[in-house]
Order: sequence, then C-alpha cells, then structure tokens
Amino acid sequence: MAVYTHLGADELTELIGHYDAGRLVSAKGIAEGVSNSNWLIETDRDRFILTMYESRTELSDLPFFLGLLDHLAEKACPVPRTIHDRAGAPFRMIGDKAVALIEFLPGVSIDRPSPAQARAVGAALGSIHLASADFSGQRANGLGMDGWKALLDACGPEQLARIDPDLPLLVEAEETFLAAHWPEDLPRSVIHADLFPDNVLMLGNEVSGLIDFYFACNDITAYDLAVTHAAWCFDAEGRNFRPDIAAALLAGYETVRPLSGDERAALPILARGAAMRFLATRAYDWLHTPGDALVTRKDPMAFARRLRFYRDNAEFAFAG
Amino acid sequence: MAVYTHLGADELTELIGHYDAGRLVSAKGIAEGVSNSNWLIETDRDRFILTMYESRTELSDLPFFLGLLDHLAEKACPVPRTIHDRAGAPFRMIGDKAVALIEFLPGVSIDRPSPAQARAVGAALGSIHLASADFSGQRANGLGMDGWKALLDACGPEQLARIDPDLPLLVEAEETFLAAHWPEDLPRSVIHADLFPDNVLMLGNEVSGLIDFYFACNDITAYDLAVTHAAWCFDAEGRNFRPDIAAALLAGYETVRPLSGDERAALPILARGAAMRFLATRAYDWLHTPGDALVTRKDPMAFARRLRFYRDNAEFAFAG
Repeated sequence: MAVYTHLGADELTELIGHYDAGRLVSAKGIAEGVSNSNWLIETDRDRFILTMYESRTELSDLPFFLGLLDHLAEKACPVPRTIHDRAGAPFRMIGDKAVALIEFLPGVSIDRPSPAQARAVGAALGSIHLASADFSGQRANGLGMDGWKALLDACGPEQLARIDPDLPLLVEAEETFLAAHWPEDLPRSVIHADLFPDNVLMLGNEVSGLIDFYFACNDITAYDLAVTHAAWCFDAEGRNFRPDIAAALLAGYETVRPLSGDERAALPILARGAAMRFLATRAYDWLHTPGDALVTRKDPMAFARRLRFYRDNAEFAFAG
Repeated sequence: MAVYTHLGADELTELIGHYDAGRLVSAKGIAEGVSNSNWLIETDRDRFILTMYESRTELSDLPFFLGLLDHLAEKACPVPRTIHDRAGAPFRMIGDKAVALIEFLPGVSIDRPSPAQARAVGAALGSIHLASADFSGQRANGLGMDGWKALLDACGPEQLARIDPDLPLLVEAEETFLAAHWPEDLPRSVIHADLFPDNVLMLGNEVSGLIDFYFACNDITAYDLAVTHAAWCFDAEGRNFRPDIAAALLAGYETVRPLSGDERAALPILARGAAMRFLATRAYDWLHTPGDALVTRKDPMAFARRLRFYRDNAEFAFAG
C-alpha cells in the first residue's frame, strides 16, 4: 500500500533502457500491493507496472511468479505478461532488490459486484486453473493449514481473546475439525490463493485482468474457488452473505471447469479453511501492528463471521 | 504521500460521469502530494489526475488554486489545467471532501539536475510570474515571516535544542536579522512558493509541468526565485552548494523576467528567509511526528545548513 523505496529519474531511465520498451515519459508511484513498491510507468510506446520486490518476497520465488504470468498470458488468460529485458531476463536487480516490468492492464477493481461480474470472475478463475495444468513451476502454499496454524499458535489463546473473547474457542474447535476432515484426494493445480476484488480488474462485466499472483502456489484447485467465494460473496465485514453472487460465481466457474462431485461436496470445508487462513493472517497482523500505526489493520472478525457462516450454512452457501 | 480515502469503482464512475471526459478505464491511487489523496485516472479518451482535498487544504482556497492553474495554462505556462464538470464547476464534493479533476502532464521529477535543466526551471518560474500579473485571485502567504515565526515559537528554544544544540541561537539571531532587513518595496505577484524538484516534471531538458500549487500565494516575486534556489542548488542534506546550477537557474529566469537591481541585491536575504521557512516547518513536523511513525521526517538541519551558507556566502551564492 505504499512506495517503500525512492527511485530517481536517472535510475528509472537507466532501468527502462535495459528493455525494448521505449523512452521514459512518466513514472508515478502507486498505492498498490501490500509488501512491494509499484510504479505506473509510461514510455513513448506503452504503459507498464514496475514492481520492486521488498523484503517479503523471496527472490527464489520470482521465477515461479513471473513465469506463471507468462504461461497464463500465453494461453490468453487475462493476466499481465512479464516484460523481459534485452538479455531475456524476467527480472533485474537494483542494488539488492529485484524489479520486474509487467504489462499494464486497464480496468478498475469492483467494490460491490453484480451477478454478471461474479460470473465473469468465476470463469476467469477457472481459466487459470485449466491453463496452468502444464505449467512446470512448483511452489508450496506457505499459508496452507500448517502455515495458518503456526500463525494462530504464535498469537496464542490469550492474545486471540483480546480480539474477541469467543475467538480462542472458535479457533481451537475449527483446527480440530479441519485437521480431521481436510480433503486429501482432490485435484490440485496452480492456484491464485488471494483473488479478492482488489486483485481483479474489470471493464464493465468483463474481467480485464487478474493481478497480484504473489500468493500463487500449488494446492487443491477447488480451494481457490472457496477462497474466491469467501472474498466475493460477503460484505467486507463478513456480516451479509450474498447468495446471488455466490451462485453466479460458481456457475461462471463451471462454464469453464465443471466441478466433480467430490469437489462440490468439499466446498464448505474448503471455505472454512479459507476463512481460517485469512482469520489467521489478520489476527497475527492485528496483534503485531501498533494501534497508532498509519497502516490500516484489517479486522480479523470479518473472517471469524465468515467461518461461522460456512460452519452453520454449508448447503445454503454453495447452493447452485 | 498516500491515499487517505478509499474511492470505489462505483463512486469513481459516477464522478467521471459528471465530466465530459470519457468512460472510466483505469484508476490507480498514486503516492504523490503530502496532504491530499491522488489518483491517476484513465478514460477511453485521456488521462487525468484526480485530487481529493483532505483536511489541510481549506475549501475556501480552492477557487484560488484551481483558477490559477486555468489562468496560467491559458497563457501557455507548463501547468495542468483544471477540468470543469458539465455544469462548469472546477471542483465537486464527495461527501464532505472536495475533489478536482486535473490535466495529466507527462514528465518525471529530476533528483540531480543538469545546468540545462536548471536553466529551463528558471525560465518556467519566470513565465508563471509574468503570466500571473493579471490574475485576480488573492491569497496571503500563511508561511511568510509571521507564519514561520509562529511555528518556531511553538517549538521553543528547548525543543529546538533537542534537534541541534546550536539551533536556538541560530534561529534567534536570524529572526532578529530578517525582521530588521526584510525588503518591503520589491515587486509582488503570485508565487509558487514550493518549487522543489518533485514539483517539476521534465522531459529531457524541457519542463513539461509545474505542479502542486497548494502553497501558491501573493508575495515578493523574487522570494519565489530564492525558494527555488534553495530547493535546487544543494544536495538534499544542504551540505554541497552547486554554483553551476545556481548560475543556470538565475540565467534561465532572467531570459524571461530580468531582475531589477534591488531584486538582485535582496536575493541573499530572501534566500535566508526561504531557508527559515523550510527550517520552521521541518522543525515543527520533526518535533510533532512520533519517531516510529511510518512517514519519513525530513531533517530540519538540511535547511539550517542552507541558512548558514546564505548568511556566510551572500555574494558567491548569487554570482551570475
């Protein structure tokens, strides 16, 4: 949500010179991305997003992320392709930080989707699942069950109770349930794993871009649909479920990639796992961000509410 | 340096619909401006900067700022014009906040100018001084001598000494000197009052845009040249004066608006006033910003150094 590093005009001009991308005309730091710095770059030929990877992104993951964009764009998925430099490299170093030049895609992020928009999002998600089938890159999900469990353990029941007195019991019961019931035999693929509305660009009812693949990994394919369901089918506070959006999202997905019976049956449990994953990161950040810091803390309870909803309304949540 | 307010796609689309500006295609919050939120907006017709005025900008000053842009752009100065809505209004309200749509100008901000670039900046500054002669708007300089003196008084000698032990004496001596010698009979006009490199967009050696007029006011014309001198002719820490840049800036300015003998003679004193003005705001912000805040505090001593330089090198600083 910021630009952490200053890049001067000289540095930018020198950088752009390493690409066959035209002459630098404009560069604006943009308030996008949680842990990277981003600039909207304009040359006399085109526009680009320049991303500088700050500490959180491991350099060793960049070939996976950037190669995935190229693979999906090649297959006509609505994702930005990586611009390679004149030597063919997908990223370059400025000092000790990696930077990548990425295609600029038009579109705006939707706060409150219509069913037609949710349908398009579902279809776009299905398209990347299909298109990634022959992508050779591999990356483990650092925020799978082990990952979010470690975060919640690091918080501990006493701290979780500071967020909400009922939270420790909810978390403990859910950990036990999910450990016992998590499906192990469902189809796997590359997943986006974070397809919230701010990571989808739309022009009207069309998806013009899926962006921010920096949580992408290999995991259960239908889990990605469950994450997207949790991200799109509620208001931000997680209080109001929107069944029309949920139905449109699932229907749109199935126009591209029909679910098996096992996948469909597993969706309520996968969605409980998705809610736990975002509850865990939000609770951890909530407890570890000073209250007077300038970054906005996101309320963990917005996902505790989703979790309870999925637990108590398994059939209704995924009715077709 | 941030986007303080969230504007959703619905709000943006509705807003853009009030202008004859085309259909919204993209909106990116940009990390620009100190106290306002800014977005780079793209429609199917053009690009714009959308500014939302957060608390610091008084609504009553907006007609001055936005009218000034129109006046200067009309006279072919390199400033962005204000886009008026279909009813002719230069700004609109979203809730209790004013927003204005402003022309997008290409160009990048220069960290370390060449003499040719400094010359172009001087000429551009001269051009707005001439072009504003028949601008009817009036706005007092809230950061003239009374303004910066009030800020330094609010800090107090004990707090100033926390920044640097020698600072209270320097400030006191300078306040006495400037009160006794500040020129009162020099030509006045609208001035930019904050023409630092990040407020100038350049394409090569050409000035493509002067931006961020939110300190503009009526004051001594040559004071604006002194501010620009202090802003461009030193490294950021104020340690190294660059005489080639200073000479080029003055020469460029005089190609457009030759200085009178009185103006030229007053430049060293005006520059000491300019250094005090930025010393005052930086010292105040330094003492009133928590050390662990995420905003970068700018070092007040960078302007204490400039102040001493102007005091001790009056002739050298403004040698032609």
